[in-house]
Amino acid sequence: MTTSRHLAAAALGVSLLAVPAAAQPLLTEAMRADMERLVGAATTSSRAAEILRSLTDSVGARLAGSPGDRAAVAWGLATLRALGFSNVRAEKVMVPVWRRISEEAEMTAPYRHPLAATALGGSVSTPSGGIAAEVIEADSLAAVDALGARASGKIVFIYKKTERQQDGRGYGETVPIRGAGAIHAAKLGAVAVLIRSVGTDDNRLPHTGAMSYDDAVPKIPAAALSTPDADLLHRVLADGRPVMVTLKLRTETGPDAESANVVGEIPGREKPGEIVLVGGHLDSWDLGTGAIDDGAGCAISIEAARLIGALPRRPRRTVRVVLFANEENGLRGGRAYVADHAAELAKHAAAIEADAGGDRAYGFSWNAGPAAEPFFKEAAAFLAGIGAGDFRKGGAGGADISPLLASGVPLLGLRNDSSRYFDYHHTANDTFDKVDPAQLNQATAAMAAMLYALAETAEPLPRIPEADRAGRRPE
Amino acid sequence: MTTSRHLAAAALGVSLLAVPAAAQPLLTEAMRADMERLVGAATTSSRAAEILRSLTDSVGARLAGSPGDRAAVAWGLATLRALGFSNVRAEKVMVPVWRRISEEAEMTAPYRHPLAATALGGSVSTPSGGIAAEVIEADSLAAVDALGARASGKIVFIYKKTERQQDGRGYGETVPIRGAGAIHAAKLGAVAVLIRSVGTDDNRLPHTGAMSYDDAVPKIPAAALSTPDADLLHRVLADGRPVMVTLKLRTETGPDAESANVVGEIPGREKPGEIVLVGGHLDSWDLGTGAIDDGAGCAISIEAARLIGALPRRPRRTVRVVLFANEENGLRGGRAYVADHAAELAKHAAAIEADAGGDRAYGFSWNAGPAAEPFFKEAAAFLAGIGAGDFRKGGAGGADISPLLASGVPLLGLRNDSSRYFDYHHTANDTFDKVDPAQLNQATAAMAAMLYALAETAEPLPRIPEADRAGRRPE
Repeated sequence: MTTSRHLAAAALGVSLLAVPAAAQPLLTEAMRADMERLVGAATTSSRAAEILRSLTDSVGARLAGSPGDRAAVAWGLATLRALGFSNVRAEKVMVPVWRRISEEAEMTAPYRHPLAATALGGSVSTPSGGIAAEVIEADSLAAVDALGARASGKIVFIYKKTERQQDGRGYGETVPIRGAGAIHAAKLGAVAVLIRSVGTDDNRLPHTGAMSYDDAVPKIPAAALSTPDADLLHRVLADGRPVMVTLKLRTETGPDAESANVVGEIPGREKPGEIVLVGGHLDSWDLGTGAIDDGAGCAISIEAARLIGALPRRPRRTVRVVLFANEENGLRGGRAYVADHAAELAKHAAAIEADAGGDRAYGFSWNAGPAAEPFFKEAAAFLAGIGAGDFRKGGAGGADISPLLASGVPLLGLRNDSSRYFDYHHTANDTFDKVDPAQLNQATAAMAAMLYALAETAEPLPRIPEADRAGRRPE
Repeated sequence: MTTSRHLAAAALGVSLLAVPAAAQPLLTEAMRADMERLVGAATTSSRAAEILRSLTDSVGARLAGSPGDRAAVAWGLATLRALGFSNVRAEKVMVPVWRRISEEAEMTAPYRHPLAATALGGSVSTPSGGIAAEVIEADSLAAVDALGARASGKIVFIYKKTERQQDGRGYGETVPIRGAGAIHAAKLGAVAVLIRSVGTDDNRLPHTGAMSYDDAVPKIPAAALSTPDADLLHRVLADGRPVMVTLKLRTETGPDAESANVVGEIPGREKPGEIVLVGGHLDSWDLGTGAIDDGAGCAISIEAARLIGALPRRPRRTVRVVLFANEENGLRGGRAYVADHAAELAKHAAAIEADAGGDRAYGFSWNAGPAAEPFFKEAAAFLAGIGAGDFRKGGAGGADISPLLASGVPLLGLRNDSSRYFDYHHTANDTFDKVDPAQLNQATAAMAAMLYALAETAEPLPRIPEADRAGRRPE
């Protein structure tokens, strides 16, 4: 299979001695030709922005279990059918239901200021008259713990800035505060927790996101302040005078509701039973229209697969698009997929997730057997031509596909430039206008080429070694 | 007075023949020394950011006639006194009272979308159940007029983008739509008007601002959509299907309330009766905390004057700081100043306004007798050293001082880089964190030097010729 490449390499005087001669799934000339064609098509005739616009304009916000979520499932089915996918279906998933009804926050001393605040996803309501209490500040979960008895009866305010990084690691460093702040504060007898939004912007639009409770301690209301409001509170607290805040949240938790993973396929030409999965999550938070999180990932996945289906010769394996349910506040879609497809997981050759926005791709994360490295080196060298050659080994690809880790399925994650991502993430500002179609197309090109290579290699990639399959939910 | 400069110029072989030898108010060596000192002080020990922080953190929003407005007057008096100003006083001004109570907008067809909207300042309420009507779009006031009978019973949506420009002229091109849209639409029997926010950002934070009614046509509710929401509506309308919007505004107009122009002085050493006025407006819109509009202008004015007062030798004329009332929705402060000081206007040597934000100054606008040109050329050459040498002849300096035009008082306007200004202007995002202290200090340096030059020149500037005193309100 690599004969023509060996010849070409020999003609160029390039030694391939470092590459094992055995059945490594490397990129053949024919594969490269199709990958180039896909890059060209994604750059010149992509429908990714059109797909994204359709989802965000016609469905909008789609928090799990909401009317928008139901509309999104219908949209997914109709869209995949209209684009010519095979075996289009909704795979039922029961999802948790949480709803934001109203929210209000005000600093009342030393002076009065309305505060732009939003309940974290899952937060309980305050008493209907609200909570009025003095504020005490900490800059980490450990610092909350260290407040001890001083936090009792107070609103704990956790103030930590999120750093802007291409790989989004600033989010990973701050998000534990969002997830566990209420638990740490409740242990000390605090009456509520406020956090500085986990975001890199300076807009008065707070960032919501999932948070957890611990049944062993009281459930206290939890909200995020927009970064300018958090900065104001931080400045005023630094002056040393007592600071009082009033917080009124109304939220609602209902019984689980029916949603679905939406699935469509481009059947493989030789090994239709072998699956290369690609997807993002169809649900979104309720404040924006879920354009960057994760409409973009859905659009990239759908369009990359569609372009592959439009090739004169489809790849060997089946490309399966999965638009997952309920990533944001439950991961029920990803878990249901593994349960529903348990018998088929051994035939999953790989899975790729797109859940880092719609900006340009700069590479992929990958996790597979170590012998897969030459394949990824070749893929990286190919994608370097469009600026997407930065490959990093490790991780579980993305939240939705992370439950596949236990089965050893090779997992990849599209790495979009996340420099702007956390400006908009989980806010009302996550709207279609934030996506640059040229960058979205480049990311689609990278995805299409990678997906094709995985679906076409003669041999599937070596699976993740048993030792590396410890379950973890990635960021 | 110019002897030492002539000598220095001669030593450098520079001809000064082009400069009239008579009593032009040029910059002497002694003046330049003090101006340099002021630039240095503003750069290294400015209190401008501290003043601005105090106003925005402790008072916050301060729409004319609101509790915040009263707190701002008290703040202004206390601040000027604490900083050592003389003759600190509140000059009573009766201001209009308009209040935003609640606002809600939603696209209901072809699909449902909440719309981020805000009432324009002065808008009437909708009926309590709201207005539900089909939307019809136009891109200018002339295009609204051309809708004719088609606008009857509809919500007219005026969609025009505001261009980003250093000099803010994009605002001037779009703002007439905000001011007069309701009048044009009402003439055709429209039930409400929506505009794309007059702003250059892409945040879901709509821009409010003043609008007018015409007693000859019905008063219809008027609101601005945030730019992403306006863009959504525009895209959906372009699809050609009927678009329905529901709009619910509750606002309130009350009887005029008492406010004040806040005044403080640095008395002149030789001609204390001659006044060089410097100021901005103390009121702000209600959505943000009025940091860039116009807390920054107040801080620049106060600090520039304070630095002059701290010089070992004060300038000849009195520097008078005026923090004007009610610029945003009435201009009552600027008008009251002229009425209250009618007898003294002949002794106003000049007036400078700072009302273009807190970003770096790139120059001044000036309006005076043509013989003032050499003075401004020298001032521009001096200020070019700090990037503020771009002087433009014309205009009325700023809205608050524009009523002085009729008296011929030489009028100047600080030109701040407005590239970012209309991202935040009149939105909830107009907060302290948007101001860069280094840029604010540079603008303060430019203001202090200019103000000093005007207060110290041997002869005051020639006044604006009668022919150029036609009343106009600048942008």
